[in-house]
Amino acid sequence: MLETPEQSATGRFDTVLIANRGEIAVRIQRACRELGLKTVAICSEADREAPYGSAADSFLSIGPSSAAKSYLNQDAILLAARLAGAGAIHPGYGFLSENAAFADAVEKAGLIFIGPTASSIAIMGDKISAKRAMMAAGVPCVPGPDTALPDDAATIERIALEIGYPVIVKASGGGGGRGMRVVPKADLLHEAIALTREEARKAFGSPSLYMEKFLEHPRHIEIQVICDDHGNAVWLGHRDCSMQRRHQKVVEEAPAAGIAPDIIQPVGMACVQACLQIGYRGVGTFEFLYEDGAFYFIEMNTRLQVEHPVTEMTSGVDIVQAQIRAAQGHVLDLTQGDVTCEGHSFECRINAEDPETFLPSAGVVTHLALPAGPGMRVDTHIHAGYKVSPYYDSLIAKLIVHAPTRAEAMTRMREALAGTEVEGISTNISFLRALFEDGAFARGETDIHYLEQWLKLRRAA
Amino acid sequence: MLETPEQSATGRFDTVLIANRGEIAVRIQRACRELGLKTVAICSEADREAPYGSAADSFLSIGPSSAAKSYLNQDAILLAARLAGAGAIHPGYGFLSENAAFADAVEKAGLIFIGPTASSIAIMGDKISAKRAMMAAGVPCVPGPDTALPDDAATIERIALEIGYPVIVKASGGGGGRGMRVVPKADLLHEAIALTREEARKAFGSPSLYMEKFLEHPRHIEIQVICDDHGNAVWLGHRDCSMQRRHQKVVEEAPAAGIAPDIIQPVGMACVQACLQIGYRGVGTFEFLYEDGAFYFIEMNTRLQVEHPVTEMTSGVDIVQAQIRAAQGHVLDLTQGDVTCEGHSFECRINAEDPETFLPSAGVVTHLALPAGPGMRVDTHIHAGYKVSPYYDSLIAKLIVHAPTRAEAMTRMREALAGTEVEGISTNISFLRALFEDGAFARGETDIHYLEQWLKLRRAA
Repeated sequence: MLETPEQSATGRFDTVLIANRGEIAVRIQRACRELGLKTVAICSEADREAPYGSAADSFLSIGPSSAAKSYLNQDAILLAARLAGAGAIHPGYGFLSENAAFADAVEKAGLIFIGPTASSIAIMGDKISAKRAMMAAGVPCVPGPDTALPDDAATIERIALEIGYPVIVKASGGGGGRGMRVVPKADLLHEAIALTREEARKAFGSPSLYMEKFLEHPRHIEIQVICDDHGNAVWLGHRDCSMQRRHQKVVEEAPAAGIAPDIIQPVGMACVQACLQIGYRGVGTFEFLYEDGAFYFIEMNTRLQVEHPVTEMTSGVDIVQAQIRAAQGHVLDLTQGDVTCEGHSFECRINAEDPETFLPSAGVVTHLALPAGPGMRVDTHIHAGYKVSPYYDSLIAKLIVHAPTRAEAMTRMREALAGTEVEGISTNISFLRALFEDGAFARGETDIHYLEQWLKLRRAA
Repeated sequence: MLETPEQSATGRFDTVLIANRGEIAVRIQRACRELGLKTVAICSEADREAPYGSAADSFLSIGPSSAAKSYLNQDAILLAARLAGAGAIHPGYGFLSENAAFADAVEKAGLIFIGPTASSIAIMGDKISAKRAMMAAGVPCVPGPDTALPDDAATIERIALEIGYPVIVKASGGGGGRGMRVVPKADLLHEAIALTREEARKAFGSPSLYMEKFLEHPRHIEIQVICDDHGNAVWLGHRDCSMQRRHQKVVEEAPAAGIAPDIIQPVGMACVQACLQIGYRGVGTFEFLYEDGAFYFIEMNTRLQVEHPVTEMTSGVDIVQAQIRAAQGHVLDLTQGDVTCEGHSFECRINAEDPETFLPSAGVVTHLALPAGPGMRVDTHIHAGYKVSPYYDSLIAKLIVHAPTRAEAMTRMREALAGTEVEGISTNISFLRALFEDGAFARGETDIHYLEQWLKLRRAA
């Protein structure tokens, strides 16, 4: 049985500190202001000229350019919140957004953390406790025990045989593609376990491992949920984020193509059930691998995601506003019956990076043209003259399109990419343009390995 | 009875010449490309650097900066179409878009005019024949005879008495607020007739006048229609464009606030009926004055309008694509039952003009930041470094927002305006920001005179 986590505070606030930077700081600031809330922007030394800073009601410089000393500096952020009179902190994505200790510290400082409780974050941050919570709610999981692997070699062998090779061994505290190893057959098992345990100890401070079935050609499918503090939760349809390079999503879409409603429906409802069981609040994403018509839970992101706009475009729900309203203690203003997803949406992440080597590119944007028109949306913080700093994530803009069908949405994205011009720095725009001409992608015949293979073939050609 | 106009050609084409400039050239180009069509851009001397030019498949310079010698030069445009192999011409709005002779010349040159037939344009271009067509279809018109005023003074007096003072006298060939005069009482009638006849003769080449009831505080309400060449037509809801300065629309919204469905429904259906009776093809707008719960037809715009995006946002229909598909001879792919308008949309016209004097402002845009995010759309052709020329309309961008309710859409527009920065030239942004703080506007208590009065009060304050 799951313990009922201690309920953290929701309630009234009129000023929100946005503990983030870049496009998501702009996005959150807009949502706050549309809800009539004041905003506090923070910046590192490198972001002093940040355009969202001057648009905020307060703008505080909180530390040097290094993220560890600024956007990850919990004390400095809490101090800034106190100085500026903020009643709540929105963590955005990345940085401190899934840090249970930070959520706890925010609450102990008498502020509201715009996200789930520290306890929800902690449960979902550990792969084993997350899997256990999912199984309890009927969310389909990858075959494999919901406990850490024992030390006993014979038991490990038996578990692997029960799951069936190939299996994958993962660090319980890992993520982002690190601390995991595929074991194709039995005679490689013990060496793989030893190596992964050592890596886990070094990278995550714990040698705890778990084992699962390894899926060979899955797609990455996500389910977006929104929950309030009053026992209400809905899911807003699904996304396909299979287009990844080195476990980084590059293109996302909603809905996932070719998945029948009667297959996804029970999975969505199980996610809602899981949220209710753990007392989840705010927005979150259940990530699944999908192969041969079956879903396998991999992890839950207990925060706003980069790709939330594709679901906003199809569902018509402002996910950031809904998240803030949940933190204010409001009752969710939509039921599952109100949720209708229409049309198809794509998002491309425009990164400041070399389109061949993918190395980050810093410098001044000397010319910028962004696409606009029906069914096009650009979420960005840059403008002509903006200086892209080398300190942070290379994401400079998200192009989002929406159209009645997937084919029309692809055409619209080609058009959006054609209308995007960034000079002064290198970007991945040419790479994205080529990807949107790919036939297999157009036919929806891709999986999580497709983009890497496509890149290899292009290089070889 | 109306004559059935001769049917002009619709049919296949793979290349469209866009006989326009600015944001609408970008908008049409995008729609063409999304439909898989090639585009030909044209420019005057002043627009040689036009960003939509380099994005087109062909780009031809057709004349000097003066519009009369370039964008209004029918021969040069037809020659460009032949040179570039265009099969159709899209006239956009303004310039040649409602010129029946041009539509006819395009057709005689063996090309397709993306718009209604020359005969439809001609019928609607003459106020009296337009009113007659409307009355035949049951479209409510302003009280007054559907014939030109006779010369006989006694008959004119009787007509005015039947309508009831105040009346308005208008030139049959007039428009845009010119060639019209309000007559508040009987003893001013004959002088008003004489003056207006003289103006009409000078300005429009014909002394023909008509008389109507004068409405004192009406709103300007529009109904958008789309028709194919196969006897199908639908209306896409309504817009309020009452916010005008010197008969120029400044802010438009859809739907018009506070008009009950059972009041607008028969008017929309009568517009559809009128389209079917005159064999109308493509997109068009019926403009009405609305006072005390009653609609009074004033004119039909037989072309795409500047404010079409607010209807795109609420109806989800791509009006420009629908227009092009109609010209290709396709059957309209939606029925009236498919049309559902959701939420509320506003459009602000960002003009390069002094916010106090409203005089046009030309020069180089040295800094540009445009708002982006959920429910925001910007239709523009400018970028940082763009040179705004003094030769044409001062419209440099359209900010369009969409949100579930009118109040939320107003908040979103305030946010969009706050995020819009244009440096190097003067714009009306500060004026628009102030307007969106106005209480009467927020309550929907405005009419076609409101903006002028508001400006006077602000100046006096």
